[in-house]
Parts: sequence; C-alpha cells; structure tokens
Amino acid sequence: MAYELYYWDSIQGRGEFVRLALEAAGADYVDVARQDMSALLSMLQSKTEPYLPFAPPFLKDGDIIVSHAANILMYLGPKIGLAPAQDQERYFANALQLSVTDFVKEVHDTHHPIASSLYYDDQKDAAKLRSADFLDNRLPKFMDYFERVLQRNPAGGHHMVGAALSYVDLSMFQIVEGLNYAFPKAMKGFAKTYPGLARLHGAVGKHKNVAAYLKSKRRIAFNEDGVFRHYPELDRQG
Amino acid sequence: MAYELYYWDSIQGRGEFVRLALEAAGADYVDVARQDMSALLSMLQSKTEPYLPFAPPFLKDGDIIVSHAANILMYLGPKIGLAPAQDQERYFANALQLSVTDFVKEVHDTHHPIASSLYYDDQKDAAKLRSADFLDNRLPKFMDYFERVLQRNPAGGHHMVGAALSYVDLSMFQIVEGLNYAFPKAMKGFAKTYPGLARLHGAVGKHKNVAAYLKSKRRIAFNEDGVFRHYPELDRQG
Repeated sequence: MAYELYYWDSIQGRGEFVRLALEAAGADYVDVARQDMSALLSMLQSKTEPYLPFAPPFLKDGDIIVSHAANILMYLGPKIGLAPAQDQERYFANALQLSVTDFVKEVHDTHHPIASSLYYDDQKDAAKLRSADFLDNRLPKFMDYFERVLQRNPAGGHHMVGAALSYVDLSMFQIVEGLNYAFPKAMKGFAKTYPGLARLHGAVGKHKNVAAYLKSKRRIAFNEDGVFRHYPELDRQG
Repeated sequence: MAYELYYWDSIQGRGEFVRLALEAAGADYVDVARQDMSALLSMLQSKTEPYLPFAPPFLKDGDIIVSHAANILMYLGPKIGLAPAQDQERYFANALQLSVTDFVKEVHDTHHPIASSLYYDDQKDAAKLRSADFLDNRLPKFMDYFERVLQRNPAGGHHMVGAALSYVDLSMFQIVEGLNYAFPKAMKGFAKTYPGLARLHGAVGKHKNVAAYLKSKRRIAFNEDGVFRHYPELDRQG
C-alpha cells in the first residue's frame, strides 16, 4: 500500500524533507493534500483520532500515523533504504535531523521573529536584527558543525552518516538549496568555507531520482509563504 | 554501568527532561558536568569524536552517544520502563516529545526573540511583543493540543500516551512547572481551562521518586539563566 504524506499543498516547508526521501527512494506514495486538501484538514480537526498530529507533515502507513518530519524520517528511513543499519548511526542520524529541525526553525524566525500570526511587514525591523544575527552567528555555528561531522565520518566524507545515502544527506541538500534561495549574497563564499557540504549538495542534486524529481511538477518552487523566503533586505548587505 | 548524562551544571534547561526520566525510573546515572565540567566541554570540542553532539544534553551509555533530549528519551524510554511498548504509541510518544521541544524553544524565544548572543536587556522591547503573542496565541495552541491528546487517550485520561507513566508525562509536568515559574499571572486559570493537564501535573509531582528528587539538591532551582525565566514584565499584565 502506498505511503500517504500529508502536508500543505503550496509550500516546500517541513514536508519537503519527507518528500525528498520518498522521491529519492522511488517509494510508492501519495502527496494527499495536493489532490484533496480536505483530507488534511479533517485529520487536524478530528474529534476522535487518538494519535492526533500537532501540525503537518504527517505520514500514514496503513493504520500507523507518524507526525513531525524527523520522526517520520526515523520511521521511514529503514523501510525505504535511507537510514544506516547500526544503532549508534541510526540515533546519530536522528540527532543530526533534530539539528536540521532546529536550524529550520531559526531560518523561519529570521522573517518571523515576533509572531507567526503577524505579517512579515509588521515585524520587519525585528526581522532585520534577527537575520543579521542569524547570518553572523547561527548559520556559521550550524554549518561548521555539519561540515565537521561530514569530514569526520569514519566511512569517508561523502555522507553525513554511514557509507551510503541517507535521509540526512537529502535534508542537507535541501538546507543548502533553501539558503541559496533565501540568502544568495550571504551564500557567495559557501563552497570555499564548507567544501564538504558543497560537494554533498552537488552530488545529491545529481542523484537520478532526485534530479528527476527536481525537474518535475511535484517539486513546488520556493516562495514567500514557505520557510526559506527571499527578502533582499534580510540578506547580507553590500 | 551507570548512564552518563552531560548537561550544563547550573540550569534545568533541556537536560531536565532527561534528568526527570532518569530520576523517576530510579536509574543508575551520573550527572557528569555537575562533578566535572571539563568532561562536557572536551566532548564538545573533540577533534576526533565521529558522533559529535551539536550541544548538550547528550547521554553516554557505554560506547553509545545520543544527543538531543527527544532522541535521548526515545533511546532511553524502553530501557528504563518509561515508554509504551507498541510501535504506534512509541512513535506518538516521540511526536509529542517533539512538540514539547518546539514549545520549549518558543518559551526560550519569549526572552530572546532577536539573538541568543545578546543580553535580554538588549532585546526587551521585542521580548515584550513576542511574549504577548506567546501568551495570547502559542501557549493556548499547544496546551489545547496536549489537553485534547490526554483526554482522548484510549487507555484513559491519566497519561499522555498508553496506560502507564511515560517520559512524555514527565515532560508535561516540567512544562507546567516551568510555566508556573515564568508566567504566574498568565497561569492563574490554568487548572480550570486544562483540567487534565493540571491533574497530570499534580499526579507526577506526587510520584515517589519524582517527589524525592524535587526535594533533593539534585534538582537545580529555576533561575534567569535557564529556559523558563521569571521576568514580571513579560507576564500577563494587570
């Protein structure tokens, strides 16, 4: 039976980390809300569902429901051949994915530092301050860490964890894609400062299934409703 | 062999969710940094460790290293009898813990909406705006969700998931404790609005091992270096 992915139909957002894994694996799945948004909403508003998700993304696999991107990937990874086999590596993959989660939240908060419920225009001044700190301090802190992990992989510096492609590699690809879209000026020296991550980004983009997906209509374009938004005034100036 | 927990020695912070689980279970563990801070720092600065944590907390279990509170709890839960046995429930426990993680980050950002690297005093105006939104919108959104999950538990409304105490119940206790400390005015009507969560909070506080822990010196007091901080100007006014 096909996996059912539930996520908003007009943004990449947090669902994209799951979409990329399903696509890379060539897994049989339905992107439910892109055909019928009401199925997603009725789940969130269900009065009886005991395993209620807080928010999308969530995945249905037969009777099983799993929510939160990192949780879905931990569940799905071994089933679709995108997780390491050994226990230490599997928990490390999840730890890396949780750092990805934290990073994505910080990216979101560059444009929404005060409240998700307010428009960007109503928190633009705070957004400029937060973005400057993000580019000066937070982005380097996370990228230094991810580069170090990659370079130190005992199986060689081609994957974030283990000797084969995993969902963490796909998430790193998505992060670099998103940063290139949102902060093109700040990202200019990226490949020089983070050669391992830049090489991984290139390799994942050339992966047969990933490349086909990126060219397809199934890939939603980046836009200013998602997590990674291009507001030139938040990018590095000059 | 005793579990080794690594976390900052002067705050409850994100480590407290793990401490509470170890304490409730009566597990054999060492709170390493409270005896020797250098062991924590040398791990974070290690030039060779392949399974490098991004930040504390992390846990060592013999040769295995696991970082991120939710990941540690997912690893530890089954070993110390604080996780449900069935797959669906175990992934649901992890999903709930990841919502706890998200909530804790939002609590942190009430006092640090612009930058962790700046003092609170340098972002006080933004903190007031963010806290108001937090109390008006985010806190109710999360608590409505957690209350609904609790009330809807097929095993009865005494636990967040499954029929027995789990690490998620302990984390809910900690969240209510923290909110009571940080936002006493805003929390005044809590028990009326969220009777299930209030009852769970009371029951966990009376759990034999938890009660003994809370009275011990091992429990660090809440303070203004942690996640939950009491700044009266950020609480509900009037």
